[in-house]
Amino acid sequence: MATLSLVSPSSISTTTTNHRRRNANPLILRTPSFNLRTPSHARLSIKAFSAPSPSPPLTQDDLKKLAADKAVEFVKSGMVLGLGTGSTAAFVVAKIGELLKSGELKDIVGIPTSKRTEEQALSLGIPLSILDDHPKLDLSIDGADEVDPDLNLVKGRGGALLREKMVEAASEKFVVVADETKLVKGLGGSGLAMPVEVVQFCWKYNLIRLQELFNEEGCDAKLRLSENGKPYVTDNSNYIVDLYFKTPIKDSEAAGKEISAFEGVVEHGLFLDMATAVIIAGKEGVSVTTK
Amino acid sequence: MATLSLVSPSSISTTTTNHRRRNANPLILRTPSFNLRTPSHARLSIKAFSAPSPSPPLTQDDLKKLAADKAVEFVKSGMVLGLGTGSTAAFVVAKIGELLKSGELKDIVGIPTSKRTEEQALSLGIPLSILDDHPKLDLSIDGADEVDPDLNLVKGRGGALLREKMVEAASEKFVVVADETKLVKGLGGSGLAMPVEVVQFCWKYNLIRLQELFNEEGCDAKLRLSENGKPYVTDNSNYIVDLYFKTPIKDSEAAGKEISAFEGVVEHGLFLDMATAVIIAGKEGVSVTTK
Repeated sequence: MATLSLVSPSSISTTTTNHRRRNANPLILRTPSFNLRTPSHARLSIKAFSAPSPSPPLTQDDLKKLAADKAVEFVKSGMVLGLGTGSTAAFVVAKIGELLKSGELKDIVGIPTSKRTEEQALSLGIPLSILDDHPKLDLSIDGADEVDPDLNLVKGRGGALLREKMVEAASEKFVVVADETKLVKGLGGSGLAMPVEVVQFCWKYNLIRLQELFNEEGCDAKLRLSENGKPYVTDNSNYIVDLYFKTPIKDSEAAGKEISAFEGVVEHGLFLDMATAVIIAGKEGVSVTTK
Repeated sequence: MATLSLVSPSSISTTTTNHRRRNANPLILRTPSFNLRTPSHARLSIKAFSAPSPSPPLTQDDLKKLAADKAVEFVKSGMVLGLGTGSTAAFVVAKIGELLKSGELKDIVGIPTSKRTEEQALSLGIPLSILDDHPKLDLSIDGADEVDPDLNLVKGRGGALLREKMVEAASEKFVVVADETKLVKGLGGSGLAMPVEVVQFCWKYNLIRLQELFNEEGCDAKLRLSENGKPYVTDNSNYIVDLYFKTPIKDSEAAGKEISAFEGVVEHGLFLDMATAVIIAGKEGVSVTTK
């Protein structure tokens, strides 16, 4: 697969950390040199020619593409495949389109998690279906907003959390791709939004309840607004309440259940015990952690 | 209160049954004679004059009104009050409007559970608010589609299950009014619909999952349709999947959790451990069961 040319096989190493539980096995693929970079990685390839050493710094987009290419190695011909949403997932979809075009992959059926992804996949000629017709998926690949040491995630800052969760929960394997800036010690720890999709009816009531639920974590709950200042409306005609935490969520599992139990909450951005592998691209290389 | 004139105080009796748990205390108010009927109960009053014995049979609407009038005895001036939806709840709202007009009740704030109830309450001059402004209610009164011996309910055949559950869960007390045809030994036992509100996205996927969840109960899941043959759309822009059971649900509590855990399920019609009192009107009288 293409990604293998990006890394030095001799630098593959396995590490364990005390923080990991539940058979999380990190496999670190280090990238000591970027001279092996693929031609499609144009900006860096040019730099490599003009200044082979030291390696040029990788941008966040470079890292996302590294992780995306690695994730696509999990894709085999004949699979029913969940296609994620967001900037990293877009690299995954692009790569799959490329491999279908070249004939390296065949008979893929994609299940998009958003209208945006559907449009991108269609433009690349990826055959698409929906959960109604393909209720069991072999694999989903998607980005994440936060990844904790147990491979639990925060997702949905892009607003597609419900469809992503439906598709990914229906998948036998769920591979997460992210750059190293998404790693957190505890969910909510980035200080960025953890989204909760709520019905429009009495959204303020639920906003207050959600904020009060996380009193200990110092939570600030805000209704997500569109650029025009009006409430952001999801694909399912709901609103999103974004939760901002001063300290990470103490017990994510309990929190997930408590949020779900609120009447009028449609879905939340805690994706717990769902990822089967997480691929993180960082300046030190690409790490693959599986469960 | 008006209802007391409908029953013979000397016939009040307390019974217990082996089926009841959790301090359910039924108080039976028997109605041996209907000569004490209020003038507003016009159809039956006239019959009583022409043929005082035997008592004329009570229609289902008569029973609903009996239960509704009894429930309104729980309402005190100054209360924030959840107003239910459906034919029995409509009698409750009408009675409250009447008592406000006569001055027997004052300073009531009503929180309607549907657009229909909102319209009815407005037409009667009942001051209204929403959960956003009144997040804590003193009392809700609503009908039910099924009532089991533990005061657990099936609700939502009218399509307002989400708003009803939001309002009633926010209420300190929740009084259910129903006629005796709604009593079941186990939820789902009426053979009529137990509704589940689902997002429109991949509704068929969730319909199949719901049906499979109740394999043991012989469940038939159907998308609710409007009169025009198109899918019925709730106030929250969702669809409703109606579940029909051949045998009652074996474990309602587990079932409620499993349904809620399905991504894309917004709410379900199992109202468990919510009712604090159930008022049942039957041909033998009005029974009040409290927890």
